[in-house]
Amino acid sequence: MPEDFLSQNLNIFDRHHIWHPFTQMKDFEHRDMPVITRGEGLKLYDNRGNEFYDCISSWWCILHGHNHPKIKNAIKEQLDSLEQVIFAGFTHEKAIQLAHELLYNLPSHLSKFFFSDNGSTACEVALKMSYQQRLNNGEKKTKFIAFDRGYHGDTLGAMSVSGLSQFSRKFEGLFFDCHRIASPYCYRCEFGCKSGADCNLECLKPLEKLLREKSSEITAIILEPLVFGAGGMIFYPVRHLENLIKLVKAHDIHIIFDEIATGFGRLGRMFAMDFLDENLRKPDFLCISKGLTGGFLPLALTITTNDIFNSFFDDYEKNKTFFHGHTFTANPLGCAAALASTKIFKEENTLENIRGKISFLQKEKEKFSELPIVGDVRGMGMICAFELVKDKKTKEPFDSRLRTGWKIYNEGLKKGLIIRPLGDVIYLFLPLSTQKTEISYILDTLFEILKDFR
Amino acid sequence: MPEDFLSQNLNIFDRHHIWHPFTQMKDFEHRDMPVITRGEGLKLYDNRGNEFYDCISSWWCILHGHNHPKIKNAIKEQLDSLEQVIFAGFTHEKAIQLAHELLYNLPSHLSKFFFSDNGSTACEVALKMSYQQRLNNGEKKTKFIAFDRGYHGDTLGAMSVSGLSQFSRKFEGLFFDCHRIASPYCYRCEFGCKSGADCNLECLKPLEKLLREKSSEITAIILEPLVFGAGGMIFYPVRHLENLIKLVKAHDIHIIFDEIATGFGRLGRMFAMDFLDENLRKPDFLCISKGLTGGFLPLALTITTNDIFNSFFDDYEKNKTFFHGHTFTANPLGCAAALASTKIFKEENTLENIRGKISFLQKEKEKFSELPIVGDVRGMGMICAFELVKDKKTKEPFDSRLRTGWKIYNEGLKKGLIIRPLGDVIYLFLPLSTQKTEISYILDTLFEILKDFR
Repeated sequence: MPEDFLSQNLNIFDRHHIWHPFTQMKDFEHRDMPVITRGEGLKLYDNRGNEFYDCISSWWCILHGHNHPKIKNAIKEQLDSLEQVIFAGFTHEKAIQLAHELLYNLPSHLSKFFFSDNGSTACEVALKMSYQQRLNNGEKKTKFIAFDRGYHGDTLGAMSVSGLSQFSRKFEGLFFDCHRIASPYCYRCEFGCKSGADCNLECLKPLEKLLREKSSEITAIILEPLVFGAGGMIFYPVRHLENLIKLVKAHDIHIIFDEIATGFGRLGRMFAMDFLDENLRKPDFLCISKGLTGGFLPLALTITTNDIFNSFFDDYEKNKTFFHGHTFTANPLGCAAALASTKIFKEENTLENIRGKISFLQKEKEKFSELPIVGDVRGMGMICAFELVKDKKTKEPFDSRLRTGWKIYNEGLKKGLIIRPLGDVIYLFLPLSTQKTEISYILDTLFEILKDFR
Repeated sequence: MPEDFLSQNLNIFDRHHIWHPFTQMKDFEHRDMPVITRGEGLKLYDNRGNEFYDCISSWWCILHGHNHPKIKNAIKEQLDSLEQVIFAGFTHEKAIQLAHELLYNLPSHLSKFFFSDNGSTACEVALKMSYQQRLNNGEKKTKFIAFDRGYHGDTLGAMSVSGLSQFSRKFEGLFFDCHRIASPYCYRCEFGCKSGADCNLECLKPLEKLLREKSSEITAIILEPLVFGAGGMIFYPVRHLENLIKLVKAHDIHIIFDEIATGFGRLGRMFAMDFLDENLRKPDFLCISKGLTGGFLPLALTITTNDIFNSFFDDYEKNKTFFHGHTFTANPLGCAAALASTKIFKEENTLENIRGKISFLQKEKEKFSELPIVGDVRGMGMICAFELVKDKKTKEPFDSRLRTGWKIYNEGLKKGLIIRPLGDVIYLFLPLSTQKTEISYILDTLFEILKDFR
């Protein structure tokens, strides 16, 4: 169709030709997706005059708000010098400055930076490095441990170490073997804990058993520290993670922290691991993406140790090289955005400024527990989540065919909130720049939606 | 280190902290990688006053030259409105306009656009769609066919359907099963063909046999049309591909064209498949990336048919949804770059303008066949390749421990050429914007290097 006709019929074209991610397109057979034209702070605006609060940071990536001038200008400036260069055999200033800036925010043992494009690739790089390191060292450790509610991306390697949902299970025939262990899930504790107070971490027992029996074959465990994000926004205690680390570290198993969602202040500190005792803040791999560029551009990093690096560092003939790369590895525009975003934390005292907002959010969220359909209220940092249930007493969930979460998503849109439930878990995953008044408005609006929901 | 100190010691920091892709870092233990500060047209400039001809389009992605004002300005303009929005349940103008623009360049049956971030993810999407389509339709077709010199990316799913090199073989324990067939390789034909003239496509026999025996279990074949890129820049005849398509299509097997490298004019037409008879230009999936944004930003597309799409289009409860996505799916900045780049083809008559340059390159490359170490000269479009051998008569390769290709890479750098051989195959993979005088200079310089090489 001619271009001017197209501009009048964007939704028709979209419906006929664009296949959206994680979307049953039939849900939009008779319905237009908002055509977003502009972002500013917490708000997104469409071409029909509607505006939306981006309560999920556009899939957990926006940090300092849409259209932040410092990041925008950093990309523009970079465009005037260098947009892209092959990163094998060549380097560039922005990649170096970014690594330098990140070093200040990391435990000192994490010192080697490997770039890629997104969360899936960052995790695949960690998996492959762990696996190849063992081969390079002549060890026979080839298996991974993962949590049954973990999520590490949609490429088949990343899926192989994620939990098995009814959706991902379809692809099981293409996965490599992986030891999946039960995730801690305090609200629905399998071991009968009623609250944090009486918890003696029974849920670590299956891991202990696995390690006793199989640790010699295991190269690494991969996990999202402190919160299973896509698995249902399920938080678990620092104490659990600290004990897990002690267990695993006793068995020469690499620890891969997937901080793709939790990195860059989302939980209140720069990284989720910053809540751990310093002696236990020792992952062998840290995977970051999403917020890395402030949510402007795809970019990812797998950060690792000298020890890992050194197992690959040898004469070429020894065949120990890590042969992995993507065309846009360390794309200068992405690095410029990431550098600007990381500097904003210092320049705008971001982590200090969000403290009050976090206290407010975490306190205010509690009022949702009085609602009859809210079974659990949980949260940390700029995230809070509400698990909806049919029966509050028995914790019986809604029949999934009712699509309760989806209905609430639609109610949210009508009221200008972008929330995107995980099943029947409604959550907010707010940009760090969200203001108290905005938090207040969002919580009130969501409260009304849930209160009236039948 | 302080920032001003850092700027004086970029290489020291790089060496200590950055792990480059596809690189044995020990090769750079006592050697600085050029710190590229600027790109302009075919040239890259470093911080020491050196300049380099980007003869490989920075890993095969740069199309219209570095710093092309139209693409640069399109990104800047997009930055002033919308940098990023979740692409599930929302859409935006640049994604729609891009798909619209691409439609004009595609066979009409390719009409559904699924976005992702890079070549690996574009291929994984195609593999997963093919696999799930069979499940959704209740068919038991779960295996893939791939070429033993194919390359489709470095995530484990993409690696599972790539050839097995001495490097990738390490990860075989993490791959899913795949039928690998021998690649056509005219210079080293296993079936004794001496030239195109006497070829009766014997090399398709193994595929015929495989199809006879196993086609009922096979869902798709994945291949790079007309040239195995990373597999050694090995070209194969249109006739071969056309016959392959006929064979495969008779068995209800999806065809996945990986045009990540060949797309966007690199072979002289918009896509490699445009050299095929119109009735055979019928892949079920087309994967594109690299040149999609003109080489500015990571972005990828898997484009497929109504038939595939319709197998996923159903009531949500039927559980047929394609649950795949990446945070930056259809990132507006990447889409703006891609739209500008695609429009340049029309506005600057790119495909017409390169015809003369292609004839010139392909004619001039032939003089390399007189060199004693050049066993084979091959090429198409803006690509040409020279396979180096120890013995021209027997085609005996150099001992790989000599690292002949690597030595020539280093000679190239000294003379201001970025070439990055695949083993001992030296190749040029030129931006479409390369001028005849530049082609001439590059060929002459490379000729001198190879002539003097001992």
